[in-house]
Amino acid sequence: MPSLRLALNQIDTTVGDIAGNSELVVHWTRHAAEQGAHLVAFPEMALTGYPVEDLALRPSFVAASRAALVALAERLAAEGLGDTAVVVGYLGRSTTPSQRLGLPVGSPQNCAALLHRGRVVTRLAKHHLPNYGVFDEFRYFVPGDTLPVFRVHGVDVALAVCEDIWQDGGRVQAARQAGAGLLLVVNASPYEADKDDLRLELVRRRAAEAGCTLAYVNQVGGQDELVFDGDSLVVDASGEVLARAPQFEEGCLLLDLDLPQATAATGREAEANSSRFVADGLEVVRTVLSEDVLPAPAEPVTAGQAPRLGELEEVYGALVVGLRAYVQKNGFTAVLIGLSGGIDSALVAALAVDAVGADNVHCVSMPSAYSSQHSRDDAAELARRTGLHFRTVSIEPMFNAYMDALGLTGLAEENLQSRLRGTLLMALSNQENHLVLAPGNKSELAVGYSTLYGDSVGGYGPVKDVYKSLVFRLARWRNEAAAERGETPPIPENTISKPPSAELRPDQVDTDSLPDYDLLDAVLTAYVERDRGRAEILAEGFDAAVVDRVIRLVDTAEYKRRQYPPGTKISSKNFGRDRRQPITNRWREPS
Amino acid sequence: MPSLRLALNQIDTTVGDIAGNSELVVHWTRHAAEQGAHLVAFPEMALTGYPVEDLALRPSFVAASRAALVALAERLAAEGLGDTAVVVGYLGRSTTPSQRLGLPVGSPQNCAALLHRGRVVTRLAKHHLPNYGVFDEFRYFVPGDTLPVFRVHGVDVALAVCEDIWQDGGRVQAARQAGAGLLLVVNASPYEADKDDLRLELVRRRAAEAGCTLAYVNQVGGQDELVFDGDSLVVDASGEVLARAPQFEEGCLLLDLDLPQATAATGREAEANSSRFVADGLEVVRTVLSEDVLPAPAEPVTAGQAPRLGELEEVYGALVVGLRAYVQKNGFTAVLIGLSGGIDSALVAALAVDAVGADNVHCVSMPSAYSSQHSRDDAAELARRTGLHFRTVSIEPMFNAYMDALGLTGLAEENLQSRLRGTLLMALSNQENHLVLAPGNKSELAVGYSTLYGDSVGGYGPVKDVYKSLVFRLARWRNEAAAERGETPPIPENTISKPPSAELRPDQVDTDSLPDYDLLDAVLTAYVERDRGRAEILAEGFDAAVVDRVIRLVDTAEYKRRQYPPGTKISSKNFGRDRRQPITNRWREPS
Repeated sequence: MPSLRLALNQIDTTVGDIAGNSELVVHWTRHAAEQGAHLVAFPEMALTGYPVEDLALRPSFVAASRAALVALAERLAAEGLGDTAVVVGYLGRSTTPSQRLGLPVGSPQNCAALLHRGRVVTRLAKHHLPNYGVFDEFRYFVPGDTLPVFRVHGVDVALAVCEDIWQDGGRVQAARQAGAGLLLVVNASPYEADKDDLRLELVRRRAAEAGCTLAYVNQVGGQDELVFDGDSLVVDASGEVLARAPQFEEGCLLLDLDLPQATAATGREAEANSSRFVADGLEVVRTVLSEDVLPAPAEPVTAGQAPRLGELEEVYGALVVGLRAYVQKNGFTAVLIGLSGGIDSALVAALAVDAVGADNVHCVSMPSAYSSQHSRDDAAELARRTGLHFRTVSIEPMFNAYMDALGLTGLAEENLQSRLRGTLLMALSNQENHLVLAPGNKSELAVGYSTLYGDSVGGYGPVKDVYKSLVFRLARWRNEAAAERGETPPIPENTISKPPSAELRPDQVDTDSLPDYDLLDAVLTAYVERDRGRAEILAEGFDAAVVDRVIRLVDTAEYKRRQYPPGTKISSKNFGRDRRQPITNRWREPS
Repeated sequence: MPSLRLALNQIDTTVGDIAGNSELVVHWTRHAAEQGAHLVAFPEMALTGYPVEDLALRPSFVAASRAALVALAERLAAEGLGDTAVVVGYLGRSTTPSQRLGLPVGSPQNCAALLHRGRVVTRLAKHHLPNYGVFDEFRYFVPGDTLPVFRVHGVDVALAVCEDIWQDGGRVQAARQAGAGLLLVVNASPYEADKDDLRLELVRRRAAEAGCTLAYVNQVGGQDELVFDGDSLVVDASGEVLARAPQFEEGCLLLDLDLPQATAATGREAEANSSRFVADGLEVVRTVLSEDVLPAPAEPVTAGQAPRLGELEEVYGALVVGLRAYVQKNGFTAVLIGLSGGIDSALVAALAVDAVGADNVHCVSMPSAYSSQHSRDDAAELARRTGLHFRTVSIEPMFNAYMDALGLTGLAEENLQSRLRGTLLMALSNQENHLVLAPGNKSELAVGYSTLYGDSVGGYGPVKDVYKSLVFRLARWRNEAAAERGETPPIPENTISKPPSAELRPDQVDTDSLPDYDLLDAVLTAYVERDRGRAEILAEGFDAAVVDRVIRLVDTAEYKRRQYPPGTKISSKNFGRDRRQPITNRWREPS
């Protein structure tokens, strides 16, 4: 049985930074080659980063990606790495003349290529294009219609890209029919809570369907709102997990595989003997790199399985990775947080300390006449425990200036305080060049319990996708984790135990305006995450008055979630829904 | 030759307001029937409004739309309108078990139906799903695979939906092969400058390809960022325009058509005689409402062609319609504008006066120490000319309070002034319940020459898709149009003629930071609208230093365009890119 040493490199790329990503590929290829790897794989679109969004529609960017691929193949050979087979994702384009309305000529494709001895040996484009959730790939790409199968040291390796294994049919079936000995899948599969279990079951099922070992390599690190958790893995056709990489850590999953020797004919002989189209219109394209079979090494490398993270540890880890990436990839070193003494800003501060270090975390307490003494104390206590930078600036003079001019009352007076704090944070941010972090959680955001241009101010909202009840659980978990390590828990106990309040009027608590957070979050989960209608939610046993109130709040809060105002569209490229740029985009037109 | 009286109703629907939209359909059907129409058509998804965005993924909303369709058919009959054939768009779902990942069971479809004598006689789903620019239909819908052809008074009418005629193949070819005498296309085709010319040429070409008369009915009115301009039209197979409705006006295009008598067999006979699949996998589904042929009336109704609008009149009209719709459909009556004396806020004020009337336009001048006397005078003069509500509130006390606390300099000091104005506007908005309008234009927005949470504050930005050079042209056009009507031009001449300035530091002018606007806008048009790369733009003759500067500004301004901060995504339904709700959504879960 032929043996093959495989290196799955789960690396952290940056959208648009083609030069930097190419360097990463060279670095990790050298690392793998030094350890004797024969086949080295990198994630989906590793060369351009993922997701490139509207950059895909810019022909000069597509051209830059394609040129970088050719240059990368040449460079690997020039650096003595040409004998290693390298599979890497990039942004390519269709060579067939057909094109779809809305796509440029030579439609963009989500591609991967095999590089060997200085050449681009074979290419493929993703066959199944996801267009749900965070994915808009049907918008950007046209699908590929080949199944590349290349023979390396006597093993036939079939290639697929990410969604190709999430949808039925296509390359998984094709790989079986083509008699592949290994199905190698390159991915940029974003993190979601509990998705690792889903992914494992999927890979097991697809390995069985393909009838061969399946190697799955995934991106790691943060890119704008997305976190990629790595979790690369190798599963054999029986469903046994041969190796599994950790989540959230850049690295190489290296292992020796015993794989079946290729028997299928190749080249013209194959064309004459077999149907070219094997599944869903996919055509098998075979290439041979090497027929020589390698014996199993005396001391085979086994990668083992990285320990699994607990539920809260995993979510907390994702939030830290996402925040750190956003700060660094956008060119900041330090962050600025308005520290109220409440739970949201306390968790954000704890995350920030873990992400960029206490010395890069600047906090400001901005009390008004309605701020309680315990809030001020709790904020100062968190600063003391973590060692972050802390100062206090009262908003009373600014508040009085507005009240004297306008005589505000009610909600206008409440929101004013929040907006004065937002303005203060942005002033400090402009003066000192720190990235402002917004403390808003998903429960608030969903029901509109926040002030537009007030507490929603910030360049990044680390907990914007975290329901309030999970905010509490994460805060408790972080404190317990510190205690277990013999460290000081970062978050003051009083911050966790006191009833949440915006403190914008005397004796205000959140439950004046909202249901209890556990109840609110349960209804939100049904309405938002599971898309259940009112009748279905009532059938789950919730109180009708609460359900109606929550649904009404969610349905009318959309305005607050779109802070740059919409405006009448009169041209082909508006900013917003029809022009979607990655924020962290390092690509620049060459000058 | 059979005659048919056709009524194309270009109506203004509201997303989510199924009850209100149904009323509109009944109202305009009665109007058409009273004028003897035999066939009455309404726009794409008229029953739900367009675009419904993520509402399509909510099964209870799809169910509500389908139920409303059945109820509408029954109600039309009950009101004595059952003999009129009515074609209306709605949100339906696929009845085949196949489904795509990311779509709910019974995948949503963009449908239209023929209603007659109390029944839903036939249905179809859009075949070509646009997924570029403002369209995300592949995200929401699965395509239809039938070509309904119904016979009414001896004429075979084939149906299609919007994009079905923008893409090659599909229903246009199928209509020819099915021998249709009329191709009726229901649309929700958003306005873009000059798109009416494009649309006319397209309809002419498709009528020739279908080999029959083509009737095109389009939505009118504003929905969030989109404006629908109507411009419904009827073209015969030779390309002659038989009728054309005005842009931006709700109404009925009524005319008598001489159409070929149907010859194709129907029912089982047809199935036995012909191939069922005529193009792109479309199956012809034939129905007969009535075989009796009507003679041409003694006095045929001819609709004529509405006069075309001039270039600037058309754009100005679109901006007024979009603004008015946004204000009204979001439940506001009045707007609030910070009036600086500069050209952007002046044009916004003029648009607002035209959209909602001077008595519903509230303006506030918010001078600082850097505000020039001419700016204050120009703002007051505009108020005097138009009769809008005007007041002055100085931001100096608030500015001094911040400066005393923080000692800001440079950009931080400049942005502070802008943010204090934003906070002031929002305070008045909260206190008085006016919708704040943001004055930012597309040139500023593109290069980031604006203050986040400052001049970008507002619920709607009427000129956010208008380049600065077009702002000037529209201001001049509006003044000239007033002069031609013997009215006072709304915008002070000095506002138009003086050099633009943000007035955030002494003697500041925009050209300190930006190229001249004509040059800037030319480069932006190449880079943003036409997706040209740097090399291509240089080849058009632009200066390299200017091009590099503009490209750098555009590439780094994305952050400002996303005001609700991004944040790490950890769940299946984040707010933002994976949860896209229409802002103006009138649908509520039934309670």
